[in-house]
Amino acid sequence: MNQHDTPRVRENYTMLCDFYELTMGNGYFKCGKRDTITYFDVFFRDIPDGGGYAVCAGLDQLIDYINDLHFTDEDIECLRRKNTFSEDFLAYLKNFSFTGDIFAVPEGTPIFPGEPIMVVRAPAIEAQFIETFVLLSINHQSLIATKTSRIVGAAEGRPVAEFGSRRAQGTAGAILGARAAYIAGCSSSACTIAEERFGVPASGTMAHSWVQMFDSEFEAFDTYCSIYPENATLLIDTYNVLKSGVPNAIKAFKKHGITKCGVRIDSGDVAYLSRKVRKMMDEAGLTDCKIVVSNSLDEHIIRDLIQQGARIDAFGVGERLITSRSSPVFGGVYKLCAVEKENGEIIPKIKISENIEKITNPHFKKLYRLFDNESGKAIADLICLHHETIDDSKPLTIFDPHFTWKKKTITNFTAKELLEPVFVNGKCVYPRYKVSEIRAFCQEQIDTLWDEVKRLDNPHRYYVDLSEELWNLKHKLLSEKA
Amino acid sequence: MNQHDTPRVRENYTMLCDFYELTMGNGYFKCGKRDTITYFDVFFRDIPDGGGYAVCAGLDQLIDYINDLHFTDEDIECLRRKNTFSEDFLAYLKNFSFTGDIFAVPEGTPIFPGEPIMVVRAPAIEAQFIETFVLLSINHQSLIATKTSRIVGAAEGRPVAEFGSRRAQGTAGAILGARAAYIAGCSSSACTIAEERFGVPASGTMAHSWVQMFDSEFEAFDTYCSIYPENATLLIDTYNVLKSGVPNAIKAFKKHGITKCGVRIDSGDVAYLSRKVRKMMDEAGLTDCKIVVSNSLDEHIIRDLIQQGARIDAFGVGERLITSRSSPVFGGVYKLCAVEKENGEIIPKIKISENIEKITNPHFKKLYRLFDNESGKAIADLICLHHETIDDSKPLTIFDPHFTWKKKTITNFTAKELLEPVFVNGKCVYPRYKVSEIRAFCQEQIDTLWDEVKRLDNPHRYYVDLSEELWNLKHKLLSEKA
Repeated sequence: MNQHDTPRVRENYTMLCDFYELTMGNGYFKCGKRDTITYFDVFFRDIPDGGGYAVCAGLDQLIDYINDLHFTDEDIECLRRKNTFSEDFLAYLKNFSFTGDIFAVPEGTPIFPGEPIMVVRAPAIEAQFIETFVLLSINHQSLIATKTSRIVGAAEGRPVAEFGSRRAQGTAGAILGARAAYIAGCSSSACTIAEERFGVPASGTMAHSWVQMFDSEFEAFDTYCSIYPENATLLIDTYNVLKSGVPNAIKAFKKHGITKCGVRIDSGDVAYLSRKVRKMMDEAGLTDCKIVVSNSLDEHIIRDLIQQGARIDAFGVGERLITSRSSPVFGGVYKLCAVEKENGEIIPKIKISENIEKITNPHFKKLYRLFDNESGKAIADLICLHHETIDDSKPLTIFDPHFTWKKKTITNFTAKELLEPVFVNGKCVYPRYKVSEIRAFCQEQIDTLWDEVKRLDNPHRYYVDLSEELWNLKHKLLSEKA
Repeated sequence: MNQHDTPRVRENYTMLCDFYELTMGNGYFKCGKRDTITYFDVFFRDIPDGGGYAVCAGLDQLIDYINDLHFTDEDIECLRRKNTFSEDFLAYLKNFSFTGDIFAVPEGTPIFPGEPIMVVRAPAIEAQFIETFVLLSINHQSLIATKTSRIVGAAEGRPVAEFGSRRAQGTAGAILGARAAYIAGCSSSACTIAEERFGVPASGTMAHSWVQMFDSEFEAFDTYCSIYPENATLLIDTYNVLKSGVPNAIKAFKKHGITKCGVRIDSGDVAYLSRKVRKMMDEAGLTDCKIVVSNSLDEHIIRDLIQQGARIDAFGVGERLITSRSSPVFGGVYKLCAVEKENGEIIPKIKISENIEKITNPHFKKLYRLFDNESGKAIADLICLHHETIDDSKPLTIFDPHFTWKKKTITNFTAKELLEPVFVNGKCVYPRYKVSEIRAFCQEQIDTLWDEVKRLDNPHRYYVDLSEELWNLKHKLLSEKA
């Protein structure tokens, strides 16, 4: 087989686990808890950048991970050398797979602090083992989707291209970052492999080095236009935007009779420059020439540029998106919320903390989003116990989980369950959506949020409430522990 | 072949390129510049966190990438669908490989702004094509190595374990982040796969969920100690560190006759708690019990804890290391510095900018580090033209590239060339060092820096100077362009 015909393969990440998941696994194995059914919630506490909502992403890669879970002989040998694990546990790992259930909110869904965005129900060893990858996948892509949603919102309909691969934190940071950015509204990415793998449109034309490779800027532009008459976006700031870049670009476009074209400015005062460039292009009759800007942009700079009347048709955003530079951590956690007895009874578990926000919500739970039937907007999310059902034909009173005197009765609403079954008894039952489908769904869902929730700064806090039954259970457990 | 015997494979990242590298490549191909030899420098402008030095890492993964470079039929088909590339260029890509030279500073070397840490000499299409991966690999691992070096320095000899996989920006962020952290001085990582792939010692014992799985904290500790009498580090903050965690831990250690043990505190005021815990352990005769701390740590908090007299034996550091949270971008750039004529003459190229710091250093260059023979400390780095040789048996006058009246004549020094050949004519000529070897080399090299350069805040600026010949050339080119 010629190397050019070698099929491209996915790396296996079974060994990408925290070592304590294995020491605990071996422990559960030895002390008779290997078959104990456990429930873990995934939730997060703070929205990056102090925003009003986050966007969930990363589920599809988690499905691949679960489906691919297996230890090779080499892995087992590596673990044996640690002199930490019993031989019967290592033999058990040889046939290890995930046999439990996973429920998750669909990718592209806006999510809020404190609510379960994923629930894992599985034998203790398995549920504990997948913790690292579950969090890694959801934290990373939700981080980038959330940041992108802010940036795309600030651009007010202008296309935003993702440009950051070279500054990403590793290959997956670049590739899956481009995926998450596309889900949350970027129009394209410079990352070519993201088109091949996920259908994210790849875009880009030239770097400064192209211009420097020729004896003159005009020669560089002229050559480019002759090769790409359909796709000529010229980088005009290698020498001097107004004195050299624009005149040479106009000359090249005219010579080749190109009217559908673009110029990119990557430095300088782009608010000022873009207005000047627009004027010069319009005067030259190049009214269809798009102005693209790409210098250290983020949501705040984009908003300011637009407010200053910059004439920009599209943005290219790099390091500040692909690393979520101003807020580079999405703090999803994985917490035990219940354990099943052998007779199937579910024993709720609670983690206490002096910090009230850090106290967990016990038990196997459901998550509803309540939509106002008139406006179509999301009113609040409601966390319930798994056996509760919301009847949206009747008025419903919801209250704040911390300040319980804050109550609200809602009518004329639709309750939608957000957690969907993804794995049942270890088998994937969830569709593998195209990334373009997830992107459309994301747009639809973000449109259900009030503008006040989507504000960049000091957004309105979206309500995430507990059902009365869950609230009572939580307080009962807290009283018992205290 | 059973799936458990399937050999683990490395993903191929040929298509992880910025799309403009392909449009430019096709352009060079069409306009007759495909065989033009070009020189690109990799350098960076700012040290993360305002530090005094950075640590270079990521070369080994770059070597894999270059060695693995090839387009599959599927890749070519993906590119063909863009309707952007000529068929003869796509045919050329089918047999594409890297045929040029790469020079780089060894991994683990302290590096400074403005100096070439890598030089690529190759035909235009090839040199341009590898830009994204070169930067991605060097930027990511240098970022994490640099951050780790600060954290490990602040810990003043106490072991620092890397704990951040779950918050990393993607799988490579976790795995190669653990590699870079180990290179720069972490003692271990929670990331199990980093031990398998790179020999980074994997460590970890239990999460809060282990404690919650048992009817009492003591039962959880007792069970753990019975399974791991040799490796019992107990997490003591699930309920109450002083009232419950420590007494239960002491009881469990005593019951099992364990003296070589540890406790971990993951919340609360760890300065206060660690002193109390130390006292209680000592009074119980457990003077060898290590106290490990792991709650939102970084270099500043670690320094403060030590200054406050906290009794901490080891640190676990998570998200603030694995994402370099306070400074999550390493800004390495890739700039054209020369082009070869057909007769082999090298034509230097310079990129002008209104920002003096952004003006590039032209030509094919060498990098020397000058060490004082008496103290063994690094005095300055010197960037020269490729044909220059430093004779360290004679006094040498160096001067600041921006403030040229700042001069210094040095004697009794050793000049060491930092850029080593990695690829020659497309063949790797560089040893594949073990990560433990790179780690030892890194420690050695950091020891050559003065403490003033290693300060966390307001460090002394290390000198990176230009040779007189390079300085004269730069000024000649600037005068011509201006």
